[in-house]
Amino acid sequence: MYPQTMPRNSWYMAAFRDEITREPFARTIQNIPLVFYRLQDGRAVALLDQCIHRQMPLSLGYIENDNIRCCYHGLVFGPNGQCVEIPSQESVPALAKVQTFQVVEQDGLLWIWIGDPEKADPANIPPCPWLNSPDWVGATGILHMNSRAQLLNENLLDLSHVEFLHPGSIGASKLSSFPITVDADEKSIRVTRIMDDIECPALFKKAMDLPDRIRRTQTAEWFAPGFHVTHIGASPVGADDEDQFRHKALHWVTPETDTSTHYFWALYRNYRLEDDEGLTQMLRDAHHAVFCQDVDACEAIELALQRYGQDSPPYVNIKVDNGSLKSRRQIESMLREENI
Amino acid sequence: MYPQTMPRNSWYMAAFRDEITREPFARTIQNIPLVFYRLQDGRAVALLDQCIHRQMPLSLGYIENDNIRCCYHGLVFGPNGQCVEIPSQESVPALAKVQTFQVVEQDGLLWIWIGDPEKADPANIPPCPWLNSPDWVGATGILHMNSRAQLLNENLLDLSHVEFLHPGSIGASKLSSFPITVDADEKSIRVTRIMDDIECPALFKKAMDLPDRIRRTQTAEWFAPGFHVTHIGASPVGADDEDQFRHKALHWVTPETDTSTHYFWALYRNYRLEDDEGLTQMLRDAHHAVFCQDVDACEAIELALQRYGQDSPPYVNIKVDNGSLKSRRQIESMLREENI
Amino acid sequence: MYPQTMPRNSWYMAAFRDEITREPFARTIQNIPLVFYRLQDGRAVALLDQCIHRQMPLSLGYIENDNIRCCYHGLVFGPNGQCVEIPSQESVPALAKVQTFQVVEQDGLLWIWIGDPEKADPANIPPCPWLNSPDWVGATGILHMNSRAQLLNENLLDLSHVEFLHPGSIGASKLSSFPITVDADEKSIRVTRIMDDIECPALFKKAMDLPDRIRRTQTAEWFAPGFHVTHIGASPVGADDEDQFRHKALHWVTPETDTSTHYFWALYRNYRLEDDEGLTQMLRDAHHAVFCQDVDACEAIELALQRYGQDSPPYVNIKVDNGSLKSRRQIESMLREENI
Repeated sequence: MYPQTMPRNSWYMAAFRDEITREPFARTIQNIPLVFYRLQDGRAVALLDQCIHRQMPLSLGYIENDNIRCCYHGLVFGPNGQCVEIPSQESVPALAKVQTFQVVEQDGLLWIWIGDPEKADPANIPPCPWLNSPDWVGATGILHMNSRAQLLNENLLDLSHVEFLHPGSIGASKLSSFPITVDADEKSIRVTRIMDDIECPALFKKAMDLPDRIRRTQTAEWFAPGFHVTHIGASPVGADDEDQFRHKALHWVTPETDTSTHYFWALYRNYRLEDDEGLTQMLRDAHHAVFCQDVDACEAIELALQRYGQDSPPYVNIKVDNGSLKSRRQIESMLREENI
Repeated sequence: MYPQTMPRNSWYMAAFRDEITREPFARTIQNIPLVFYRLQDGRAVALLDQCIHRQMPLSLGYIENDNIRCCYHGLVFGPNGQCVEIPSQESVPALAKVQTFQVVEQDGLLWIWIGDPEKADPANIPPCPWLNSPDWVGATGILHMNSRAQLLNENLLDLSHVEFLHPGSIGASKLSSFPITVDADEKSIRVTRIMDDIECPALFKKAMDLPDRIRRTQTAEWFAPGFHVTHIGASPVGADDEDQFRHKALHWVTPETDTSTHYFWALYRNYRLEDDEGLTQMLRDAHHAVFCQDVDACEAIELALQRYGQDSPPYVNIKVDNGSLKSRRQIESMLREENI
Repeated sequence: MYPQTMPRNSWYMAAFRDEITREPFARTIQNIPLVFYRLQDGRAVALLDQCIHRQMPLSLGYIENDNIRCCYHGLVFGPNGQCVEIPSQESVPALAKVQTFQVVEQDGLLWIWIGDPEKADPANIPPCPWLNSPDWVGATGILHMNSRAQLLNENLLDLSHVEFLHPGSIGASKLSSFPITVDADEKSIRVTRIMDDIECPALFKKAMDLPDRIRRTQTAEWFAPGFHVTHIGASPVGADDEDQFRHKALHWVTPETDTSTHYFWALYRNYRLEDDEGLTQMLRDAHHAVFCQDVDACEAIELALQRYGQDSPPYVNIKVDNGSLKSRRQIESMLREENI
């Protein structure tokens, strides 16, 4: 069955760069309420969003220089979590310290480590070069999902639902009948489907002005526990350049609680790069609609899981679940490693 | 105390005929999510509303000929529940079968059996001849109730609340002081009150143009576990025809979950039969309002039951509870038979 | 940790005088649903809001003379709870009695005793002379709070949050740096802060036309388990009359359930007594806004407590918590006495 919890000793995408400012910003990740803000030099910090005195959310307070002041009794905490002022008394107990969390900003994304601090290695944060490259342009979005994170991981590693869940946009007839190949190492998985000659979906026509039949390639690549790159290629059948039009659909799946998830996404393209806000907006809207269908599917399944608890009727796996099931095994193995 | 669960080895009214079409229709009955649809020849079928592959509700999918296709990965199921197509692979495992439920259509109503299939005998479905008779005309409605089904069963077998819960419509002064008689066999109960000379209630005046004092008769008839016919007669005091004006109020009480109920109703009359849509609409609206008062009462009591759990203060039964209490004993006996 | 339940053998404020009329009035106190109404001679009564017959809330019924009639089957109960009429039968069982609760009206307030009736002594109800004195004038209000009552008790005994939670109204810079004194006996606590020379807060300027610097005094006085008088004084620095302008902020903290609270308040002043509805309205609105900030704080903390259950991160007390912590100890001691 789908794991409900996710590993803790992992980097999770916490926010897009612009979300974190000089105002307190609250977001719960892995059941932990967090407050984020930027220091005067621009660095981002993350603290437990709870005053050590009376449990008041610090995110309701005020940023003062590099510190945050609780709105209830005015206690002030530094970016390292240490309390530096209690307005009603002279002394501050050394123990008066709020928990902090390591964050790293890379490629315009803020990543957070909520597990054992000694195991945090920023070198393990997956790069997202497309976000900052002159050769790519695109749009981003955030969705909130009332389902466990793994349901979305499995959705994204499964290329076959595209035909049925997304008709009228990226779905195409017979798509599911093309074979997939799956390739995995310890913490990543790649599922590839090459469609040499297939119907051109509605959205591709609109964006790339392609003919009725195209060559289409799709590789869903996953880096455990929650980062996905869907590599998408399209070209007229028989074209010299087999991947004339390319998309990178990026997905960051970050657990909010055991049954809710932050779904960050980006959709970048390698064509019509300049000065085409209209195309960018159209692709943003179209993919927002597509990803909402995925969210709806995960939420419907989560409701079914919660209705049945442990007594769910038996279910059946099919061949194209190969990639999804491998990701489930990897998550389970990571959880075992952490004794969760 | 009121039973919270209801017997499973029983026929329950699942839907009015017109609710089931060539589009998937979702309704939960006895905690089981179901999808209903009609085959090309018009027969209705009911399947567990959950794909065997990834728990997706089938009701979000598509009808294709006599089959239903899941909207997530396109698996197709026949009306017998057998999976007949998995788009991404050639073979279909024999075990790929979704649970089905027996349904019977009779008198314009769809009945379902959710218990042990071997015990299902359509001969036990109670007939509702008034719905299809040229001598009767009427209207139907559906209410949803956040209370266990038995509270409504007891409400409907109790003729004495009419005076107090429904003043201004069907209530009448002194109604409760007329004696009742109760007659029961193993799976049905009849509670009768004959009021030889009683105030004519507001709604009766409006619909039947009766004088201030009338003879009024009422028999609440119950067929376990959830079908009620309230036989209502009215005539001027001393009239030759003692039941000049007659109503059949039909009620189908179908558990949705242990604390919510589908309340289907119909109100048929034997007078002003032809071409009187105005009267039919007035009676529909008036009875909708009356039955909403019953729903409100059941929901208020359910809240009280849930507040106290097992520690409810002791309560007192009165003489007119005779029919209600007999129905409770019958339900309890049916549950014991099923070892619930 | 904050107690979640409150003592039962105590008087609680149940309603302002005008709330109780000749119509049934429903309010839950200490998890007990109650119905209040006035007899023909004006006395108020309180009964369990649940018919002994079918658990119907009596508050949905009708007052008839000094009795209340259930809206479901018409049972009638006297003000002593005894059932005096069952419409459908001649006799009334002696056991047919709904529980009643002792109420006392004093100073325009209705107090209720929900614990052991033998321990109820109206002499223990704290007097509120300001509400009926020609020397004081003011306004009242009621707020509903989704948090346990003790969080508000501790908020009200804590004078130091004023600076940070209520800026722009009654907050003032440096307020928290003035020392407090705490004085307690068995069932009451007084926390006092005298500010000889402090910034005049915005609201004080508006209401009392005071200069920029004032002498300000504040004593939070608590009578366990839920009555608070905040004695407030203000005068220009160096004035002869040290408490020229005085406010009595009265707060009655009454548990509704273990995690929700009725917050009744009054704000009385000793100046501009006559014919100044504008000032009264302004002070009512301003204090409503201030007390809403307190409610928001308590609700935010209650959410944090419920998120963590027993696993809350450790927290730190500070010196100004002295009064709050003493109240917590007194409540805990009262609960121990009642074996709760």
